[in-house]
Amino acid sequence: MTYCVGMTLDKGLVLMSDTRTNSGVDNISVFRKMFHWSVPGERIISLMTAGNLATTQAVVSQVEERTKAPGERRPSILEAPTMFQVATAVGAMLRDVITSRQADNRDTGSNGPRFTASMILAGQIKGMEPRLFLIYPEGNFIEASFDTPFFQIGETKYGRPIILRAYDRAMSFEDAVKLLMVSFDSTLAANLSVGLPLDMMVIQRDNFEPLHQRRILNTDTYFRSISTSWSDALRSAFHSLPDYTFYQEKPSTEVE
Amino acid sequence: MTYCVGMTLDKGLVLMSDTRTNSGVDNISVFRKMFHWSVPGERIISLMTAGNLATTQAVVSQVEERTKAPGERRPSILEAPTMFQVATAVGAMLRDVITSRQADNRDTGSNGPRFTASMILAGQIKGMEPRLFLIYPEGNFIEASFDTPFFQIGETKYGRPIILRAYDRAMSFEDAVKLLMVSFDSTLAANLSVGLPLDMMVIQRDNFEPLHQRRILNTDTYFRSISTSWSDALRSAFHSLPDYTFYQEKPSTEVE
Repeated sequence: MTYCVGMTLDKGLVLMSDTRTNSGVDNISVFRKMFHWSVPGERIISLMTAGNLATTQAVVSQVEERTKAPGERRPSILEAPTMFQVATAVGAMLRDVITSRQADNRDTGSNGPRFTASMILAGQIKGMEPRLFLIYPEGNFIEASFDTPFFQIGETKYGRPIILRAYDRAMSFEDAVKLLMVSFDSTLAANLSVGLPLDMMVIQRDNFEPLHQRRILNTDTYFRSISTSWSDALRSAFHSLPDYTFYQEKPSTEVE
Repeated sequence: MTYCVGMTLDKGLVLMSDTRTNSGVDNISVFRKMFHWSVPGERIISLMTAGNLATTQAVVSQVEERTKAPGERRPSILEAPTMFQVATAVGAMLRDVITSRQADNRDTGSNGPRFTASMILAGQIKGMEPRLFLIYPEGNFIEASFDTPFFQIGETKYGRPIILRAYDRAMSFEDAVKLLMVSFDSTLAANLSVGLPLDMMVIQRDNFEPLHQRRILNTDTYFRSISTSWSDALRSAFHSLPDYTFYQEKPSTEVE
């Protein structure tokens, strides 16, 4: 499994992903799931991936045109006029990789895995707004909006309640990073298929290269302090709530 | 979907379940998922159910021997000498209902639903400890232990992090109810398939009837106050965490 979150803020975009891939529980590896390409001063495009690793690597290789010699690669996503067209192109690559793999599979009579994957695409092209998309295995996609300003892929449930509660479009990048660390920490605490290290990237509006990016290792002092203090803070938050007493309610709400 | 939690404490057992059942998103009903049977002074047995409603109702009907006239019903679970035997009996009923339904389905050539369900069984028989079991669709089961003192069934992920953090075997019943309300509130906020009202029951050790039981409606003032203050408390907890700064880490942890 995987956990990735992309978030739009007034100030820009914040992305975080884990790096654990597993095939069963006894075959665990570290693979990067966050990628970016940029044309300084003109555009930055970032992609996070969840799902079948061969599928997502194939898509990333296609985006980078790795069939060509390094000097001849001109990724089309770096020339597309809008982020919408980038999303369309990446979506088409993703759908084509999945369907061709599934077709091969049917041809050999195998009833194997479905090779699906989904992706979060984030970025900005000069003169336009920062944009955030969730791309489905079918190749279609949705865009983040005022009402739904963040997307998660992979193991999304454990870390969702805190984002729903603490997200604020006007928050600082630092607070957004803190929020994502808390969300990842909750997920890591509950699910073995999501694991450190984490990758993190901050893209400031109208600044077409990463403002900040880091790999968060398990030795990271800040992440460890968040992890510890979040446990304590949650417990205090819990104890700060009004106490329950058994007979406060009117009899009308009692079960007969 | 469903959300049910059963928790063992030093003082006894605390159970909570939602009541929403849905077939698709446009066919939503309220059904009780928490049941109990008791012999005052001798035993109390409680069951919570998740999964196919026809399956779980069939099992509960069998437990209650509803094929017989009311005066002739002597549920075997009220005569079993140990909670282990109660779990074995309920597990066998569950497995039999599921397999016979699946067999009928195959006979008619239907490729329909799998009719599975799982259950949490909790209770105490005089002279023995309170016990808590998770019963699988296959009819086998596991028992809560010191290391894993609570079980969840249904939509378990959203509400799990707070239980992992705030649970304490020595906590009071009141705190346990508060904790479960927070866990349910996080789940309700994120998932439409879990819904109010909630059912709640507290079973005190060596007290063979429910110490406290309630149906929590959406007008419940305590639940509403928890829901509101938990949002606020979470936000303050979040802001109480150490702040992130972009360049605190040593260069060695930077991504090149």
